[in-house]
Amino acid sequence: MSDARRWFALSSPFPMKRGGELVGAHLAYETWGTLSAERDNAIFILTGLSPSAHAASNADDPSPGWWEDMIGPGKYIDTNQWFVICANTLGSCKGSTGPADTNPATGQPYRLDFPELTLEDVANASHELVRSLGIERLGCLLGNSMGGMSALAYLVQHPGSVRAHISISTAPQAQPFAIAIRSLQREAIRLDPNWNNGHYDDAHYPEAGMSIARKLGVITYRSAMEWVGRFARIRLDSEQREEDPFAVEFQIESYLAGHARRFVRSFDPNCYLYLSRASDWFDLAEHGTGGVEAALKRIDVERALVIGVETDILFPLSQQQQIADGLRANGATVDFVALDSPQGHDAFLVDIPRFGAAIAGFLATL
Amino acid sequence: MSDARRWFALSSPFPMKRGGELVGAHLAYETWGTLSAERDNAIFILTGLSPSAHAASNADDPSPGWWEDMIGPGKYIDTNQWFVICANTLGSCKGSTGPADTNPATGQPYRLDFPELTLEDVANASHELVRSLGIERLGCLLGNSMGGMSALAYLVQHPGSVRAHISISTAPQAQPFAIAIRSLQREAIRLDPNWNNGHYDDAHYPEAGMSIARKLGVITYRSAMEWVGRFARIRLDSEQREEDPFAVEFQIESYLAGHARRFVRSFDPNCYLYLSRASDWFDLAEHGTGGVEAALKRIDVERALVIGVETDILFPLSQQQQIADGLRANGATVDFVALDSPQGHDAFLVDIPRFGAAIAGFLATL
Repeated sequence: MSDARRWFALSSPFPMKRGGELVGAHLAYETWGTLSAERDNAIFILTGLSPSAHAASNADDPSPGWWEDMIGPGKYIDTNQWFVICANTLGSCKGSTGPADTNPATGQPYRLDFPELTLEDVANASHELVRSLGIERLGCLLGNSMGGMSALAYLVQHPGSVRAHISISTAPQAQPFAIAIRSLQREAIRLDPNWNNGHYDDAHYPEAGMSIARKLGVITYRSAMEWVGRFARIRLDSEQREEDPFAVEFQIESYLAGHARRFVRSFDPNCYLYLSRASDWFDLAEHGTGGVEAALKRIDVERALVIGVETDILFPLSQQQQIADGLRANGATVDFVALDSPQGHDAFLVDIPRFGAAIAGFLATL
Repeated sequence: MSDARRWFALSSPFPMKRGGELVGAHLAYETWGTLSAERDNAIFILTGLSPSAHAASNADDPSPGWWEDMIGPGKYIDTNQWFVICANTLGSCKGSTGPADTNPATGQPYRLDFPELTLEDVANASHELVRSLGIERLGCLLGNSMGGMSALAYLVQHPGSVRAHISISTAPQAQPFAIAIRSLQREAIRLDPNWNNGHYDDAHYPEAGMSIARKLGVITYRSAMEWVGRFARIRLDSEQREEDPFAVEFQIESYLAGHARRFVRSFDPNCYLYLSRASDWFDLAEHGTGGVEAALKRIDVERALVIGVETDILFPLSQQQQIADGLRANGATVDFVALDSPQGHDAFLVDIPRFGAAIAGFLATL
């Protein structure tokens, strides 16, 4: 299998916000397009909780990426014009250093010995990578979902490092509904006896906990409205059903089961716990005094595009409005786009035509 | 402990919709007020999934009921005027026959040998009870949440048996978002090794699964908006926290844990599975042809009050509107009330002043 990933060695030791440090850590990243001589055409993408750095196909890895229809030559984020960088998040398990990797101090996997991870650490690691590529100032920093929170952490910690910002379906601080959902996802994993306080292996793996966590995720990533149209009360054919009296019966249940099946073994449970908790911890208000509004007002970008979705129950539109208002308060020119996509929080991965039009339109003005 | 419950023996055998029958089954119920000589002042209440028949205090049981501020002398449902009956749902574990009870055929608990339960069975059992009290026609049939679905089953199966209907935060058929949530709750219970295919006991009890199911319930019963105001990002005091790196940290997590703690041992897991599945199965469209609208149109009541809450994500306002429109189509005079209570689906248990005003106002016109 071809691999387009490059590896960037973080400064060592790399200090972590809540204490501790990483020795010999690295980020996996991919790029598309060409950095201009002026080094002013770079777009850095900060991802949600689970995606890899492979946002789109490229020469070294022609397999489709998670934002395949968004990024490429002639696409909405046009790599004939822009130099696009996407990194796997620090603490993840898709090439960047995280809890599933070997702790050089012990020669064993970190597991729960990985230092406490925050989205500020994610942002700082990303900033180091950007600087290592010779980029003093990003043309655009784009973050969606958890990546949008990481982007706000990047902006508030590294003033002057970004010209324009695209914020998608995210939050300036975690709110209690989202905390409740994520806390329950973590609990499902931790209650699985196979989690074993982080000491699972392939033969004893917390499948049940990961399955519940993923299904709960998918439930909150989409919208009730979408599902009424898509699944209604359609049942599986009788030959698809198991004998178990409580087995899957409706298509919606089968859809969730499929999502869980594809995810459970492809994402490390401890990494999931660390990134999920980092999302709960995120609060831009911790940067300075005066709360979220004041912190947003301290962010200096020239231009911003803030996109939210009306059917998003995890990162509600009101939080996107809050980000737009806050950035505007510091003099940035901000476009706020509220989309009525039925796909909820996941719309940025699905409703590419509408998101793409908004993003391409914004990029064209830079 | 005093007990106001009375027991009604169902016809035996009592036939179940999906096959099988119950022998020697009974319903537990309580009453408030006095049945008039004309027997025309009875209100029957069909409950949500977990409440008991003890809707309010009375002489035999002065402990507060689950709708204490709603029902009583001089209260919104005024028992000086109305004779109020509330039964524990068939299949539940608060006195009525359900999976936790002894199967007379074996002398052992039914567990998963209990016949498949539907809300039509719940309705038929309730109708038998009403008839046994000498009531040919209810003054009002009131159902909230799952009880609202049972009420629609009652109405469609027993034409002419009800004069007025109050429908609260319910659904004429289960939609995929609600199915997804309930399916995941059942999965959490079933994946708990202590569930043991229904063969748990007090020493080996599916606490973890029940805890996840209840927390997920509470998350979907309330609203994100309420929690922003109520919990925001308030953390527990450090002395309240455990050492576990993923232990409860935010007040919202502690709130959910408290709800789970109170519920886990007070509701039988197999009963929960049966009632939850019955809710998913409910589809008024199964009664006749032409879909939900046609089925609603076949229901004959003189008057109806339909109440929904804008922040309810489990039983959305659009479904309340559908019920109101459907009943109106058969000539009933229908009051539709959309409340902006912040408490979501649970508002009928919490926002008593607003629900009470609507209910009392409606009852005054009967």
